[in-house]
Amino acid sequence: MTTQDSTLPSSRPETAIRVGLMGYGRAGREVAGQLLSDPVVQLQWIVKRSAGESTHPGSNVPVLGGDQLDIARLIGEKPVDFVVDFSLPDACLGYAKTLAKKGIGIISAVSAYQARHLNVLKQAGQTTVVMHSPNITLGINFIMIAGKILRKLAPHAGVEIVEEHFKDKTEVSGTAIRLAQALGLEPAKKINSIRVGGIVGRHEVIFGFPFQTIRLIHDSISRAAFGQGALFALKQLQGKSPGFYTMEQLVSEAFSVALKEAI
Amino acid sequence: MTTQDSTLPSSRPETAIRVGLMGYGRAGREVAGQLLSDPVVQLQWIVKRSAGESTHPGSNVPVLGGDQLDIARLIGEKPVDFVVDFSLPDACLGYAKTLAKKGIGIISAVSAYQARHLNVLKQAGQTTVVMHSPNITLGINFIMIAGKILRKLAPHAGVEIVEEHFKDKTEVSGTAIRLAQALGLEPAKKINSIRVGGIVGRHEVIFGFPFQTIRLIHDSISRAAFGQGALFALKQLQGKSPGFYTMEQLVSEAFSVALKEAI
Amino acid sequence: MTTQDSTLPSSRPETAIRVGLMGYGRAGREVAGQLLSDPVVQLQWIVKRSAGESTHPGSNVPVLGGDQLDIARLIGEKPVDFVVDFSLPDACLGYAKTLAKKGIGIISAVSAYQARHLNVLKQAGQTTVVMHSPNITLGINFIMIAGKILRKLAPHAGVEIVEEHFKDKTEVSGTAIRLAQALGLEPAKKINSIRVGGIVGRHEVIFGFPFQTIRLIHDSISRAAFGQGALFALKQLQGKSPGFYTMEQLVSEAFSVALKEAI
Amino acid sequence: MTTQDSTLPSSRPETAIRVGLMGYGRAGREVAGQLLSDPVVQLQWIVKRSAGESTHPGSNVPVLGGDQLDIARLIGEKPVDFVVDFSLPDACLGYAKTLAKKGIGIISAVSAYQARHLNVLKQAGQTTVVMHSPNITLGINFIMIAGKILRKLAPHAGVEIVEEHFKDKTEVSGTAIRLAQALGLEPAKKINSIRVGGIVGRHEVIFGFPFQTIRLIHDSISRAAFGQGALFALKQLQGKSPGFYTMEQLVSEAFSVALKEAI
Repeated sequence: MTTQDSTLPSSRPETAIRVGLMGYGRAGREVAGQLLSDPVVQLQWIVKRSAGESTHPGSNVPVLGGDQLDIARLIGEKPVDFVVDFSLPDACLGYAKTLAKKGIGIISAVSAYQARHLNVLKQAGQTTVVMHSPNITLGINFIMIAGKILRKLAPHAGVEIVEEHFKDKTEVSGTAIRLAQALGLEPAKKINSIRVGGIVGRHEVIFGFPFQTIRLIHDSISRAAFGQGALFALKQLQGKSPGFYTMEQLVSEAFSVALKEAI
Repeated sequence: MTTQDSTLPSSRPETAIRVGLMGYGRAGREVAGQLLSDPVVQLQWIVKRSAGESTHPGSNVPVLGGDQLDIARLIGEKPVDFVVDFSLPDACLGYAKTLAKKGIGIISAVSAYQARHLNVLKQAGQTTVVMHSPNITLGINFIMIAGKILRKLAPHAGVEIVEEHFKDKTEVSGTAIRLAQALGLEPAKKINSIRVGGIVGRHEVIFGFPFQTIRLIHDSISRAAFGQGALFALKQLQGKSPGFYTMEQLVSEAFSVALKEAI
Repeated sequence: MTTQDSTLPSSRPETAIRVGLMGYGRAGREVAGQLLSDPVVQLQWIVKRSAGESTHPGSNVPVLGGDQLDIARLIGEKPVDFVVDFSLPDACLGYAKTLAKKGIGIISAVSAYQARHLNVLKQAGQTTVVMHSPNITLGINFIMIAGKILRKLAPHAGVEIVEEHFKDKTEVSGTAIRLAQALGLEPAKKINSIRVGGIVGRHEVIFGFPFQTIRLIHDSISRAAFGQGALFALKQLQGKSPGFYTMEQLVSEAFSVALKEAI
Repeated sequence: MTTQDSTLPSSRPETAIRVGLMGYGRAGREVAGQLLSDPVVQLQWIVKRSAGESTHPGSNVPVLGGDQLDIARLIGEKPVDFVVDFSLPDACLGYAKTLAKKGIGIISAVSAYQARHLNVLKQAGQTTVVMHSPNITLGINFIMIAGKILRKLAPHAGVEIVEEHFKDKTEVSGTAIRLAQALGLEPAKKINSIRVGGIVGRHEVIFGFPFQTIRLIHDSISRAAFGQGALFALKQLQGKSPGFYTMEQLVSEAFSVALKEAI
């Protein structure tokens, strides 16, 4: 912990946020890079699935792994304020209680949770700050909230979703399903899935009026956007009471504040 | 006004809104059609520039015109609750005082006002409800507000505007300029104007992040969208205190209400 | 026929093309306006379904109709070089033999033909010039041909079609089905149909490569585009031998000529 | 070259194409990966600017570099059929004569050539096969040719170009300028440049007609598309006589063949 600097603007925490990262796959690597790029965040360690120990390229952040890893001991040796999870669903079963007991925050962007995983995280939310969302990009959550508002403003407008992804993504986009649910649309009827080539990810919500059309479009350029979302969440969760939050809630709150300033 | 019917939902007026329309050009004709299509609105008369008297096709609404028209006498004979103005700037100089004295509301979508016109309307706003915006479509105003919020949420994102119109529109879109101003962008630098063929009107706001892009797009299909905007304004202005309002304010209010319901 | 004017550029026929129009619905009216706007075409008459006689607004072109109309007599009194048909499928059963016998050309843009209608038109093609396509806009036919070429250049690219139309269009776009067939795609799998609001008509063909995406997009602004297509066909068919042609063939020929000039 | 195998399809060379790659920056690395992925191509070596020797990750292809590198000796030791150049303009001054003398083909995608560089390559084209284009993606060249044809088919349509790139790209896209020139448009007037966030590269050509709009859009996903373009060029140049070619010419030829098959 560094000493307090009273000259910093109030929206910046006076001290660094110490973070541990679970998951070191394609998303995890990009997220690590983003966490390292932010002056307020101090990435302390990364946990990967396979055994072995190395450091993240261009840094001295240790990348640890293997079945023998003891999360309690790791936290004792290299304390963190938050754990950010981009690994697999079962990981939370191993760390949730330990982190909850110590009041360490949890940000999970794992997308394939079942009820038992969510229950464990909600339980942890009783004693620490927990946030989970399958898509934590600012863009998707912004479109979700703006879209929900437009639905209320114009309930008679027709709405459909188009999602485009690389050809090997066989299932319907989980983000599109979440968007559909948020907008009160039946996913099976209102989601149109395009699968061609190497499209990273594009989500479009089309609102059709008799004489005008509104389109809200999100284009993903790289998975590093998830790291930006994690940074946004880390900052928004500062000072929050224990509880179970979603990215949509965090963005909604910031949205409300911004709306008051904007009008 | 008739007696109150407490069984009606509060967002619906208990009786019809009687409306007079100024302007019978391309926009005015489309707006007349929309005003006639709404069960809550009763279009009482239309005023055009050229002399003569007829009725609007498919209705018995009189279309009156010419230099001799006496607006005070017209209102005495065929009373209205609101005047909707899609005519030329100077028209307001003729009707503002008369309407203000009688407490008749004014909705103006005239786009080329100078300071003296706006002053007259603001003066009228001291005793009656006045709303003015150069673009009163729900879509453009929604994008303006959502865009302002996104600017506050993500002040470091780059933003540009693309506006596309038919080739004979020689000037930069007034709507694009208004959008730029609302978003704190310098119009001369951040508006890109495409002029080809017969494009009715398309406005796109592009927010660029390092790893994702958000696009808010409005496509105009026909000028009848202005009539839908006038209907939205007529309903939102019901029960409002005298004052000078903009469409953006009305949509912002509805936006705030919808946001509270949505989150 | 007018007298020859040797000062006209060679790409312009030396005499006007006299045209009769079948069909006076939403498309027919727009087509009439376009035919009237071209200096090379002389619209001689319009045939509508319902009885009665009037003139097309802003012109002295007679609009004739009713069950009693005798097409042979009409042609005798007001001769034409081509009949353009935007009416219903059965109309061709009434006029095809008469026109074929006199060598009068036929351009049909009727979309719901069955085999028996096409057979009658193909029969007529043995003695006169006949062209039929369900969508005769230059844009759609250009995209169809460019898309077919790209399929051959890049057979491994994934391809999907998105078509957007107003909400009351319940069936899949016939144009999209034709596009799919031309591109060797299974319509049921590769066409995504969006139905919202008042979208006039948008067709997008997406070619996905591993590291790039190509989109060919056609936006309809109004049905008058069909009239422009009819004018293109009228000029391309000048001097052609009797036969049964499609719009795609005519555009392909012009495409070939343009390619030779372009490279 | 080995003996001919008459069972192979004619579009496949009977033997592998041996290739050397100049340039190992961001584009070069991606291109190396693509060249390695193709069964017909054998990447023999890579030349980089800085001194030192290593191998390309996941392969045993040597990466050689430094001022002392002798291209003639390298070719003698590790012969190639083609050199693919993604390095800097001056590189061609060093290799052109040597390759020309030996009849080794040259494919250059260097974008900032001056007249003296082009002269050297054209000189080499007198005795070997040389191809140069600043953008060798199939997509951009397809859009260039299709766009040129549409210009000829519809000379009165209005045309504008929109190009979108990451915010640090300060100059106008060279590809957009080339597109404008090919389409007979004044770059300064008809190119609209958007610079926001991290957009990899998007080029859109908009053709506006009175009643319809056609859009040809190319989205870049990654620089690996250049590698695909190099592979396309390598195959198209097989069996060609010595000469100076452009990617647009190669794609035009394939375009012509495909058009004949398509119609």
